[in-house]
Amino acid sequence: MIFNFFPKDFNFFDLFEEQVGYAVHASHSFRELVSRGTVNEASLEKIHAIEHQADDVAHRAIDQLNRTFITPFDREDIHTLVTEMDDIVDMINTIVNRMVVYKIVGINKNLVEFSSVIEESVLAVERAVKGMRNMKHCAAVSDACVEVNRLENVGDSMRDKVLAELFETEKNPIEVIKWKEIYEDAETLLDICEDVAHVVESILVKQA
Amino acid sequence: MIFNFFPKDFNFFDLFEEQVGYAVHASHSFRELVSRGTVNEASLEKIHAIEHQADDVAHRAIDQLNRTFITPFDREDIHTLVTEMDDIVDMINTIVNRMVVYKIVGINKNLVEFSSVIEESVLAVERAVKGMRNMKHCAAVSDACVEVNRLENVGDSMRDKVLAELFETEKNPIEVIKWKEIYEDAETLLDICEDVAHVVESILVKQA
Amino acid sequence: MIFNFFPKDFNFFDLFEEQVGYAVHASHSFRELVSRGTVNEASLEKIHAIEHQADDVAHRAIDQLNRTFITPFDREDIHTLVTEMDDIVDMINTIVNRMVVYKIVGINKNLVEFSSVIEESVLAVERAVKGMRNMKHCAAVSDACVEVNRLENVGDSMRDKVLAELFETEKNPIEVIKWKEIYEDAETLLDICEDVAHVVESILVKQA
Repeated sequence: MIFNFFPKDFNFFDLFEEQVGYAVHASHSFRELVSRGTVNEASLEKIHAIEHQADDVAHRAIDQLNRTFITPFDREDIHTLVTEMDDIVDMINTIVNRMVVYKIVGINKNLVEFSSVIEESVLAVERAVKGMRNMKHCAAVSDACVEVNRLENVGDSMRDKVLAELFETEKNPIEVIKWKEIYEDAETLLDICEDVAHVVESILVKQA
Repeated sequence: MIFNFFPKDFNFFDLFEEQVGYAVHASHSFRELVSRGTVNEASLEKIHAIEHQADDVAHRAIDQLNRTFITPFDREDIHTLVTEMDDIVDMINTIVNRMVVYKIVGINKNLVEFSSVIEESVLAVERAVKGMRNMKHCAAVSDACVEVNRLENVGDSMRDKVLAELFETEKNPIEVIKWKEIYEDAETLLDICEDVAHVVESILVKQA
Repeated sequence: MIFNFFPKDFNFFDLFEEQVGYAVHASHSFRELVSRGTVNEASLEKIHAIEHQADDVAHRAIDQLNRTFITPFDREDIHTLVTEMDDIVDMINTIVNRMVVYKIVGINKNLVEFSSVIEESVLAVERAVKGMRNMKHCAAVSDACVEVNRLENVGDSMRDKVLAELFETEKNPIEVIKWKEIYEDAETLLDICEDVAHVVESILVKQA
């Protein structure tokens, strides 16, 4: 293996930004799909395509990490950051896949609301990740992380509210099984965004 | 960042003990709540309050870890220990929250039994964590860890027994969904206690 | 603690092979059990016995890891490899246990198909792990890992197909709950095999 001490033509920040870009793209498509109530095989293809591109950049980042001796931050933090940004896109893919398997049709207003919060959160994650390039943007990064944490709390309350409603009003247990899982997945997606924000924050602390 | 080589006014053991104290407090409140059959918004507030205090001490410990050069044990072990002690309180909060969302009322004797085993296990975790301060207490720590492992096995059997019973006797699928999850969470709580015991044991081995 | 710089009478590869052997044994027993439709307390005993032997070798490997200064690979990679090989046997145990708790009787052709794919995947994992002993077998290891990844994709499609079928045709919600979980566990088992393949691949990259 060839180690690069000063990898000149390589920049982790470019890869981080490319990766978080796919997360934004996926969250945007997700909101569109559920807002139109058109989750089908074609939507799944679309999300799959984004997921493959995101996977590819994640692999390139990990590969580069294994070949680089000096990294801008702690190696483990880079690894966690890349893995967790990947998890965002994976989770969106999981939800869309589940909706296709469960043959969910039509618009569910709770899920539309969730998808908006998810897109907002992923956009805040993008601000945090982009701000890491320049430690002068430290305050902006910190603000973005606070916003991601806030939206995770919003997601918790939404999940509790919609689950309580589901268990009270839905009399078909099969529908309860399906929607319980979709709502829980949506909330998990916000947890994953929070995990990314936590890594970014911990990188910030160590650089301070 | 200022690294402390010999952090004089700081003691990881104090934080570990404070943190495990919150876990004990939460498990005690949990047993009381389910024994009285009074899980409601007020109970959730109570557990939330404990969770916030536990979170706070966990953050202080991680923060200190990031600022301390010489630690009593392996950095990663400290990180895992703090994170997993935090998971105990989080999981108790998750169960109580779920019971409120599912509008569970009244006393369920299986859950009461589970809550007793959980409290016993968390008390054994406390003995293990407190014993780490002085390696002369090595045998007592080891005994406490064995006890946590034993209670995890007890929990496995309880879960299997109560789930088998649930699937055989409960005819309402919505109730099956609710209770299956609560019982599984209760067992997961005992798994988390076992995870804490494993970290303590692995720290012990390395110090031996 | 006594550190061994050059542990002469110790070989990590022997332990890895012993451990993966138990995974193969468990996956073989699992396929046999579900093919005969005879999952009962006796089958559980059988899988339990394999699990205990697998646990034992995993503990010996971790113990040795803690006592060895120079290891053939990155310490963390060895730890992950051992833990994830252990997860294979644990997951088979979990599925069989669940089937006993749910009192599943008779042959389910979807699960039989899953169990075949699982056995194939574990056999490919075994080829990968055995090949690590000699870096001359690098290509064979790589091929085996590709095969594990392929079978994970096969498992994803199978899960989606059988879940879609389950939600469309099974009118008893209790049966939906039971089988949804068993199918998902079966697919998770293939994910775990893929995790093992990923560690092996990452070890390979670092050795290259």
